[in-house]
Amino acid sequence: MGWTPIYDCPGLAAEFGVKRLFIKDDGRNPTASFKDRPSALAVVKAREAGARVITTASSGNAGSALAGMCASVGMKSVIFAPATAPAAKIAQLQIYGSKVALVEGSYDDAFDLCLEAGRRYGWYQRSTGYNPFMAEGKKTAALEIGEQLNWEVSDKVFAAVGDGCVIGGMWKGFNELHRLGLIDRLPQMIGIQAEGASAIVDAANGDGVLRAGPAQTVADSINVGRPRDAIRAIRAIRASKGCGVKVSDNEIIAAISRLARSTGVFVEPAAAAAFAGFVSHCDGGAIKSDESVLLMITGAGLKDVEAARRAAGEPLRIKPDVAELDGLLSRFGFS
Amino acid sequence: MGWTPIYDCPGLAAEFGVKRLFIKDDGRNPTASFKDRPSALAVVKAREAGARVITTASSGNAGSALAGMCASVGMKSVIFAPATAPAAKIAQLQIYGSKVALVEGSYDDAFDLCLEAGRRYGWYQRSTGYNPFMAEGKKTAALEIGEQLNWEVSDKVFAAVGDGCVIGGMWKGFNELHRLGLIDRLPQMIGIQAEGASAIVDAANGDGVLRAGPAQTVADSINVGRPRDAIRAIRAIRASKGCGVKVSDNEIIAAISRLARSTGVFVEPAAAAAFAGFVSHCDGGAIKSDESVLLMITGAGLKDVEAARRAAGEPLRIKPDVAELDGLLSRFGFS
Repeated sequence: MGWTPIYDCPGLAAEFGVKRLFIKDDGRNPTASFKDRPSALAVVKAREAGARVITTASSGNAGSALAGMCASVGMKSVIFAPATAPAAKIAQLQIYGSKVALVEGSYDDAFDLCLEAGRRYGWYQRSTGYNPFMAEGKKTAALEIGEQLNWEVSDKVFAAVGDGCVIGGMWKGFNELHRLGLIDRLPQMIGIQAEGASAIVDAANGDGVLRAGPAQTVADSINVGRPRDAIRAIRAIRASKGCGVKVSDNEIIAAISRLARSTGVFVEPAAAAAFAGFVSHCDGGAIKSDESVLLMITGAGLKDVEAARRAAGEPLRIKPDVAELDGLLSRFGFS
Repeated sequence: MGWTPIYDCPGLAAEFGVKRLFIKDDGRNPTASFKDRPSALAVVKAREAGARVITTASSGNAGSALAGMCASVGMKSVIFAPATAPAAKIAQLQIYGSKVALVEGSYDDAFDLCLEAGRRYGWYQRSTGYNPFMAEGKKTAALEIGEQLNWEVSDKVFAAVGDGCVIGGMWKGFNELHRLGLIDRLPQMIGIQAEGASAIVDAANGDGVLRAGPAQTVADSINVGRPRDAIRAIRAIRASKGCGVKVSDNEIIAAISRLARSTGVFVEPAAAAAFAGFVSHCDGGAIKSDESVLLMITGAGLKDVEAARRAAGEPLRIKPDVAELDGLLSRFGFS
């Protein structure tokens, strides 16, 4: 599946007063999210195990990644999704030929049914927080970053946190590079969550103990109240001397357009949360001017066009008449 | 901006009885369409010309490509779009910071206003069929294909046709490779249009004369009744001893899921039309078993999730109860 690009963003770095600012754009993976990494590995391990079907619980990127990877090699997949998942995301699962069971309940209900179905039918289980190999797929992002930055990893890595598997997997990858002697220092891992779904940030910044609760944020990929990979995520943040950062839904929406306008990189709300966390962390004076930063972009903006519409505002309407061109410059705010 | 991958699809090739089947996936460009190629060049040429603003008429991929490329280098852009364009596509333009003028009229009205605005304000004009450099951007797809296939280009290239600029630009690229001696034969260019918007196919298969008319197809990127780059497109098809193929909207919708399920590549309707044209051409016995084929994928499926929903059908709904797992295999049609 190749690799995803890193963009060096000197303009944004200057604007925020940091030494370097890198964007690792996993929105350019085959199904447009970071989750193609673990899902590619799931297909390999399922074949090793002789399984004919792979199953996962998911309402979003993990599901479409598994569906796409399975289609590419002709393997069957079954995805359990809560019936509340957006119809557009369900269509992505089905378009790749996955069999989808919409569970009339919560994500937790879908998760439990998926585990039981896997046991009953001998399906290979990909679900996050259950399959230990998924972290091996996720760590490849860190390995790529090391190679692409010529083994000089940024001082800080910002990543949005839902179940906790992305930041935990990346931390494993950076540690392996360090133990192999390929990099000589580890980055601080900064985990970003929405104010309405902040269990891991609260634990990492507090006593380290996870307290599950309800979740509500516009960033559906990190809308998680009972994170499935919390222990590794909390350990990554604390062991790296990083921290958690909380951002509001308004900050997330504003970050979508600010990042797109500054860099040409259009991201989904969860990925925008990583940028919003960086902005908030900078504003708080928590990044020194000689520090370099990497933003992990976990999903493409086309995954959630509705959020982009909220961020975009209303366009100018004109009649099909050249007289409408008079005053166009000032209406556009051009000097 | 790097390059886009070519996928070798032996399974599909066997299914259709052709020697090789390649997919060139330009849905993985930065803004998820082929149009990033010409738009990247537009930014370069605008800078050479000392322009501060680039403008284009577009209701879709060309606009979002220009908007994204401009954002990546901090250049201003103004896009004239018909007010009938889908709100989701307009949001993509705005999210990158383009100034958007929604023209209460047709695409032709938006095109004429855009030309006039460019003249009046000295904006660099990117519009398709007006800016001669855009073919130079488009031809890079052919150059990449040559290099990626080790200078053995497929016997036939299938590409969807709207304004005609993609197939015309690619033909230019293949010819340059041929004149340089890098490839020793030229592919046949097969242009695909929807039944409801088939001006170029009709001209190429008939007397070579374009007759503009109304256009209506689900594939918005090729929903063109008055093509702006028809002469080059017709020449590419006829000079290469290719042909035009017409497909119905139903064939296009069906092709979205068939291609995704066979390959893991999820495309927008216009790109699916290229595959539908291949299927129809094969069914007609027009491809020999020793011939190789390349499908040019011009846009990602996430550009038009509504079309995917039409293609996907209804998912299975179940209650959050393990008893629902009984009979799941047969409900999914698993043997």
